[in-house]
Amino acid sequence: MKIAALAGGVGGAKLADGLYQALPPNSLSVIVNTGDDFDHFGLYICPDLDTVCYTLAGLANPDTGWGLEGDTFQALEVAAALGGPDWFHIGDRDLGIHLERTRRLQAGESLSHITAAFCSHWGITARVIPMSDERVSTRVHTSSGTLAFQEYFVHQKCQPEVSGFTFENLETARPTAAALQALEEADAVVICPSNPWVSIGPILGFRDVYRLLEDKTVVAVSPIVGGKALRGPAAKMYQELGWEASAWSVARHYGSLLNGFVVDRLDEEYARIIDQSGIISLVTNTIMRSRPDRRELANQILHFLEEIDRRLSPG
Amino acid sequence: MKIAALAGGVGGAKLADGLYQALPPNSLSVIVNTGDDFDHFGLYICPDLDTVCYTLAGLANPDTGWGLEGDTFQALEVAAALGGPDWFHIGDRDLGIHLERTRRLQAGESLSHITAAFCSHWGITARVIPMSDERVSTRVHTSSGTLAFQEYFVHQKCQPEVSGFTFENLETARPTAAALQALEEADAVVICPSNPWVSIGPILGFRDVYRLLEDKTVVAVSPIVGGKALRGPAAKMYQELGWEASAWSVARHYGSLLNGFVVDRLDEEYARIIDQSGIISLVTNTIMRSRPDRRELANQILHFLEEIDRRLSPG
Repeated sequence: MKIAALAGGVGGAKLADGLYQALPPNSLSVIVNTGDDFDHFGLYICPDLDTVCYTLAGLANPDTGWGLEGDTFQALEVAAALGGPDWFHIGDRDLGIHLERTRRLQAGESLSHITAAFCSHWGITARVIPMSDERVSTRVHTSSGTLAFQEYFVHQKCQPEVSGFTFENLETARPTAAALQALEEADAVVICPSNPWVSIGPILGFRDVYRLLEDKTVVAVSPIVGGKALRGPAAKMYQELGWEASAWSVARHYGSLLNGFVVDRLDEEYARIIDQSGIISLVTNTIMRSRPDRRELANQILHFLEEIDRRLSPG
Repeated sequence: MKIAALAGGVGGAKLADGLYQALPPNSLSVIVNTGDDFDHFGLYICPDLDTVCYTLAGLANPDTGWGLEGDTFQALEVAAALGGPDWFHIGDRDLGIHLERTRRLQAGESLSHITAAFCSHWGITARVIPMSDERVSTRVHTSSGTLAFQEYFVHQKCQPEVSGFTFENLETARPTAAALQALEEADAVVICPSNPWVSIGPILGFRDVYRLLEDKTVVAVSPIVGGKALRGPAAKMYQELGWEASAWSVARHYGSLLNGFVVDRLDEEYARIIDQSGIISLVTNTIMRSRPDRRELANQILHFLEEIDRRLSPG
């Protein structure tokens, strides 16, 4: 069974890691948001891509979910002492990755090629694929003006009220060939519990991606549990944009793309309305506190996909 | 007494530090070669400027003369493991400086402004001034083709035979206003024992700099001692370019610009021919093994400058 997962940062990376543990080698492709990539100190930084790679490689800092475990912060401390910005935390080893990626990009290598090379170095047998090799930049329209994503997300800690999003260059950028191929070959697609607006939204913004998903069995896992986002601004964004902050809103948001939707036991109340909307619901524990939790959720999703296929098959 | 020193990397930085110790605060300006600046991993790196600043700040690695004492190399190790170049050694704290300089340059600050800000942060009361805020790039013509300076100097360890140099953009670039002002205000100019071809050569290549020096008392210290360069490829370059590798060649190289020339005791034999050429010689110990050695040599040079002025004054 070949699975393509769509993921953003920490929450998505956790389920991607669960699927990576649960599936045989070379069965998983993870298509990762690059809308929050940005230039910082002259380097090209891909926060979501790095979080997914570090997590699958077992290198991620378990306390934060991002960055490298045991990393030091010498370079950033010196830059900050000289007056540089330190709101985006970059460790020294993390920096080594940004340095080499930037060098290769400037030498003409594509982001997907670089990512594949890094994954190979880290021994990751899943394919981690940036959604595009072209620059797509998420802008957040807020009460404090239009902000670059990391400016909103990290520097301003998601505090400004959100009124909408622009994904710059999304209309003209193309998804990576590797992403399209992974989706074509996939038996099912799992939308990880990442932010539907700013992590999954950019990936689904590619028409070719969306069209491929329409023909696939697609299951999403709600990033909203008990009315709150497990991390990040997803719940706050739903509210500020006039939606209820709930798993049901996420299901409506993805709408007809979904065949199945996974909600936490805390949100069992929504199972009936989800089922009535024509989406098959699965109620289970979705909170991944440990590596085994990730694998357990992934296994449940894989069984759920089989059940959906049984229920949807003409026979 | 106001002194302007011209310097390249490690050897020049040592004498600059001696002058810094010997002179009252705010009496020293060091005009530094930027011809060996280069882009690496997307960052803008100024090896000579950093070496001078680190040395004056007392932060330099005493074992190498360049880099920061006690620095770690996490970032470069990671970049190298991913396939990146590791021939140019960049420590993590060193990297913090490159990051912040690159950020400021991209934000539109000039290199001289950034350098002044960094020196202020480090408590350096001398003025450290890049020779230009515009890019001048030293190219070394060799038996292995034309090489970027750091490619020749660090990566290929000065092994290819040299046939000449080009300082790209030197004809159109301007020296910094701060450098010209420092030279105008200087009572005397000290050419530090840096490589005459590739460290001092680019600075003297600015016509406005050269013209100002013609009206000043100028003393140089030979970087060639006993026919060998104390460090770096100066002696090798003289030979490959058809000159004898000797202190006398350095004196001839600077020629009519010099009023005084300082040679090591090992080169006492050249004192007579130097004096006969119209340049006043000083024979002393020029090898700086310790910080006090630097100050001692600087003090001797300051006395030498007074003596030259007495001998040259009409009365």
